[in-house]
Order: sequence, then structure tokens, then C-alpha cells
Amino acid sequence: MSTRARKETDKIPEPTLRRLPWYLSNIKLMKERGEQYVSSTQISKDINIDASQIAKDLSYVNISGRTRVGYSIDALIDVLENFLEFSHPHEAFLFGVGSLGGALLHDSGLSHFGLKIVAAFDINPLLVGTAVNGIPIFHPSLFETKTKEFGNVRIGVLTVPINIAQEMTDKMVDGGIQAVWNFTPFRIRVPENIVVQNTSIYAHLALMFNRLNLTEKE
Amino acid sequence: MSTRARKETDKIPEPTLRRLPWYLSNIKLMKERGEQYVSSTQISKDINIDASQIAKDLSYVNISGRTRVGYSIDALIDVLENFLEFSHPHEAFLFGVGSLGGALLHDSGLSHFGLKIVAAFDINPLLVGTAVNGIPIFHPSLFETKTKEFGNVRIGVLTVPINIAQEMTDKMVDGGIQAVWNFTPFRIRVPENIVVQNTSIYAHLALMFNRLNLTEKE
Repeated sequence: MSTRARKETDKIPEPTLRRLPWYLSNIKLMKERGEQYVSSTQISKDINIDASQIAKDLSYVNISGRTRVGYSIDALIDVLENFLEFSHPHEAFLFGVGSLGGALLHDSGLSHFGLKIVAAFDINPLLVGTAVNGIPIFHPSLFETKTKEFGNVRIGVLTVPINIAQEMTDKMVDGGIQAVWNFTPFRIRVPENIVVQNTSIYAHLALMFNRLNLTEKE
Repeated sequence: MSTRARKETDKIPEPTLRRLPWYLSNIKLMKERGEQYVSSTQISKDINIDASQIAKDLSYVNISGRTRVGYSIDALIDVLENFLEFSHPHEAFLFGVGSLGGALLHDSGLSHFGLKIVAAFDINPLLVGTAVNGIPIFHPSLFETKTKEFGNVRIGVLTVPINIAQEMTDKMVDGGIQAVWNFTPFRIRVPENIVVQNTSIYAHLALMFNRLNLTEKE
């Protein structure tokens, strides 16, 4: 593990990285409508975020607008898709082909956003040896072998039951996985150099239910 | 729309609502292991969050621990599941049975966390009239009729293509939907009294790819 400090100048703030895909969706729509140029003020009107915030976020990507005309939409789409790395495939393994895992194997949207699941692992004998959406499913005991076979797979999608979430994470990390996309509601522990992205859709449900009740009480 | 100010005392902070499901998962595991009591210090060790933060978060739910013994695990699971509203079903409609929408219809995990999708809508003639996982799919023109038929459906899950995300949202809100679970990468606009929960899994990908590159550069 490296002990050098991370360069803070390299690090784009998380909120910016969350907003940039919104801008991308928005300008893709503008392009569909036949528009050619866009300003941060126009994006701002559409999605209700301050134009100054949008300009600041866009300053992280390497593009410059022209006064009064704004950004070229085609160029901005290209630059954003490259910057967000949606335009080139990142290979990934998926662990746990249950309900949610199987669902993700079916989601072609992931590949449009740069994630290519190349193989999945599950202990269920009914699944091992089959394929979902063309993606082969192996027994977890084959993980090391498949790691060598597939080469540079650095991302693991975690969709196992919570009681084996930590065990499976440890196994993934031992096998060379460098980023874990954690869909379980379990908070996994990893070494400092491993990236974890928590996407607990069920936690979002709790938030939605709670806020819904607040509007009810009004 | 009500013009009364929302009572701020009713409002549990968003980070707390995001962390409570983690505690719930964790203590469910402890129960599986045969444990009966748990302290915030124990949870803290397992999931690497300050014990004082955990105690503060748990102070929002109506449970009291006993000195030296901690919380009863059974009671805490019950209280948390009730508080987070995972234990009673919230009926929902889903809009857009594409790749991600279809995947969510298959995900039995949602019902374990209190969301019951009772019907779906899509314009695809190959889907209209069929059912996925027992959930019927209707043409969007039947939305109003189905709203009356199903009664109190207040939640809409939005999984349509981005170019119709806003139009469909407006339709949902007109039809009485009070909370939109937005899975599209598009930032929808709604009246002030409508709850929006954005779950843009693709934006999470951007964040993960970016952080993965930072570790590479170390």
C-alpha cells in the first residue's frame, strides 16, 4: 500500500461527479431537439441548479465555451463522456446472482455507462455453468482461475446476501479486485487502497418513505 | 399545496436515515450468530462508524438500551424495521419496463424493504397485456383508470428513457403520485410538495471510475 499522500488537486469533489452526469443527460436531450450550442444558464433553467455552480463543475473538464454562444453540444457530450469514463468499457465481475444480481446482469444500461460485466459467480448449483444475458456464471471456487483468464478485471459488483458480504469482499480483494460496487445494505470493510461505492437502493427507500410521511402531515 | 412551514423537529437528517439501514443489517447478522444484546460500541467496531454517532442516530428511534447490557437485538430489529417502514408494504407503480425497469420488477428484495410494485406501464406493444413476476403491464393511457382501480398508490418508480422522463413525471404527479423514485440520470422537476428520491446508479459508476484512477496514480 502506498503511503504517499493523494494529490488533492487530482480529486474532483463527489458532488461535482454526481452532477456532471445530469448535465450530460440534459445536453443529450438538447442535441436530440436539434440544438448545437448550450450555455450554463440554459442548463441551469432546465435542471434548476445555479448557473455559477454548473460553470464551476464544468471547469473541471477540459472544455471552453465561447462568449454569448456557449459550449458546442457535440464537443461537450464527447468531453463529458470521456471525462466520466462512460465511453470506454471497464470490465467487472459480479458476485451473487440472486434477485438483484440477476437483474443487473440483464441491465444493458450499465454497458452504455462504461461497465461491462464479463462473468458472474454464485454457489447455486442450478446457476453454475449457465449464462444470463450471455454472461457466464461460475462457482466462486473458480474466482482465482477466472481472474487469470480474464486478465485485468478490477471492479467487483457485490450483490450477495448480507451474511456473506464481508467474506466475499475479502475474497475479492485478495484476488486483486480494486473497486467494490456494493449493492448490499451492509457496510463492508476494506483496506485503505480499495475503492468502495455504496449503492444501497433499499436505504433510499427508507428516505423516501420518511419524506412521504412528512408531506402527509403538512 | 400547503403553505405551512414543515416542522423541522419531525425531520430526521438524511445521513441518519441512510445509516440506520446499515445498523439494521448489522444487528440482523448478530442475531443470526445467536447474540441477544448489542451496544453502539459493538456496532461501531463492526462497521467503522463512531459509537457516539450511532447512539445519536438511534436516539431518533424510540428505544432505550440498558447500561452495560445494551439494546435487546430483537426489540431493536422490530423498532428499526417499523421506523424505517420496511415492515409494511407501500404500493407503487413502475413506469418504463425497459432493461432497468424489468430488472426492478424481478427484484424480490424491494418487497422485503416495504415496496410493493402492483402494476407497471410501458408503451411497448409486446409488453402491454403481459406480466413480469406476476406484475401486470399496462399501456400508459390506462394510468388514470388503474389509479382508481388500485386505490391508494402514492409512489411512482421512474425507469423510462431520459427523453420522456419529465413528461412521464408530470403525468404521474397529475394522476396523484406523491413520491417519485427516479432511477433515470435526468434531473426531473416537480411541485414543491412532491418527494423525489434520485437513485442514479450510473452516476455512482462515474464516481467509482474516477476514484479507481486516483488509486492507480498513487
